[in-house]
Amino acid sequence: MKLIRYGEAGKEKTGVILNDKKYDTSGFGEDYTEQFFETDGLARLQQYLADNHDSLKEISDNERLGAPIARPSKIVCIGLNYKDHAEETKALIPNEPIIFFKSTTALVGPNDDIIIPKNSVKTDWEVELAVVIGKKASYVEENEAMEYVAGYALHNDVSEREFQLERNGTWDKGKGCDTFAPIGPFLATADEVDDVHNLRLWLNVNGEKMQDGTTANLIFNIPFLVSYVSQFMTLLPGDIISTGTPAGVGLGFNPPVYLKPGDVVELGIDGLGTATQTVKAYAKN
Amino acid sequence: MKLIRYGEAGKEKTGVILNDKKYDTSGFGEDYTEQFFETDGLARLQQYLADNHDSLKEISDNERLGAPIARPSKIVCIGLNYKDHAEETKALIPNEPIIFFKSTTALVGPNDDIIIPKNSVKTDWEVELAVVIGKKASYVEENEAMEYVAGYALHNDVSEREFQLERNGTWDKGKGCDTFAPIGPFLATADEVDDVHNLRLWLNVNGEKMQDGTTANLIFNIPFLVSYVSQFMTLLPGDIISTGTPAGVGLGFNPPVYLKPGDVVELGIDGLGTATQTVKAYAKN
Repeated sequence: MKLIRYGEAGKEKTGVILNDKKYDTSGFGEDYTEQFFETDGLARLQQYLADNHDSLKEISDNERLGAPIARPSKIVCIGLNYKDHAEETKALIPNEPIIFFKSTTALVGPNDDIIIPKNSVKTDWEVELAVVIGKKASYVEENEAMEYVAGYALHNDVSEREFQLERNGTWDKGKGCDTFAPIGPFLATADEVDDVHNLRLWLNVNGEKMQDGTTANLIFNIPFLVSYVSQFMTLLPGDIISTGTPAGVGLGFNPPVYLKPGDVVELGIDGLGTATQTVKAYAKN
Repeated sequence: MKLIRYGEAGKEKTGVILNDKKYDTSGFGEDYTEQFFETDGLARLQQYLADNHDSLKEISDNERLGAPIARPSKIVCIGLNYKDHAEETKALIPNEPIIFFKSTTALVGPNDDIIIPKNSVKTDWEVELAVVIGKKASYVEENEAMEYVAGYALHNDVSEREFQLERNGTWDKGKGCDTFAPIGPFLATADEVDDVHNLRLWLNVNGEKMQDGTTANLIFNIPFLVSYVSQFMTLLPGDIISTGTPAGVGLGFNPPVYLKPGDVVELGIDGLGTATQTVKAYAKN
């Protein structure tokens, strides 16, 4: 299945994509939350679709898309998980995964605006494969880890490099600003993806290709990451692990190139759709 | 007011402390969640107490206490915020706050066991003053920051030093293991605390005083921290900012001293109560 959420921000309704068309599933009566995944919601939704196949209402293409899952308990990110990206940032290849967090308040829809934070001059992009956890995971073995994965989504791990690297703290400071986690267009359940370790992922800024990689080049693969993170904290249903970005971020250019108001970011991953984000300056509401 | 939550873990009921006695407030009908704080819950609870003062049911001292707030959207921690602690860990005094996160799955009751994680040999203690946010805070000015504080609570920022410092990542890896955030016994609303920047805080291990500090020695004070964190991420009602620990952690000893099964940790802050945690080894359920 391909799950979507659509409508006004903060009041999203649920839906699915079937044969490239979007359908409302409000009648199912549950948002795609921790509780949904925890109570076998994917199987129940599948049954709902089978039972209501003929009466689903199509969703207009004019509708805004939200993030395809409701706010999770946490967004865990993996740093420097592609060799070419580690090299471009002049970092060492990690001998075990780097973990950091994004504040979940950063979560927005796939085509929402990216807001450059107040006092930011180094807002950067990172196309990433996000893994959505399907059931509570603590001390999971690598060979069983894929059973804990509900599915996958496209994620732009937007990053403020000065906040992240030059402001005397861990990376978390530059990763969780509002709008810094556009996710979607949809959550593809694990069965939708043939080989998650062989997906092309790319990102353009103003039509120019900046990133063009493949998940075949992940340093630490998905079962390893799920198992690894679960040694340090309990993952809950709906939690996100974002698996790192390939080369081509703004920080890697000489001199570095950062986002400015009016820029348009497009990104995509094979089988996980594409997203388009327009960059805007922060303006007090 | 002093807010508590009590009963079985994961199914806590709400209560308050009045004149040193604990009373049930289940009849109020709301848990102490983001939604509660967001909708002026403290004022509404105050009114409920005024209206029901004579009919409140006392809670037995045998009841387990949970964390005094339901799971927040995030637990933000400040590192090295006492000069003596920065010195004992041989770190530089920070010129601006260090921010890291604890996974919210670490949250437990004030007297629950501390579980030493699997493969851990360096589990350490940190008595801290936790600030609970009362309303959504983004780009808050320092001179208005205290308006965003709902109250305060005692927190043991339990930390695995090897995971935190020697496992190739940000500190987050050593801060969010299950049971690593015992909070309480109660949340004291801001009006209960005369001068939050002049509170003694202490921690004993097996009856021996390990930490004995005062919030007068915070490098960055609470309005500064609330304002500062809100520059990098939006704080939501119920969110926690833990403000750092004074000297006396296990890492600061020569050689370092860490927690082992059977150890008993007691800690307290003036006006915010005391808590007692017994240390246990991880055992698969």
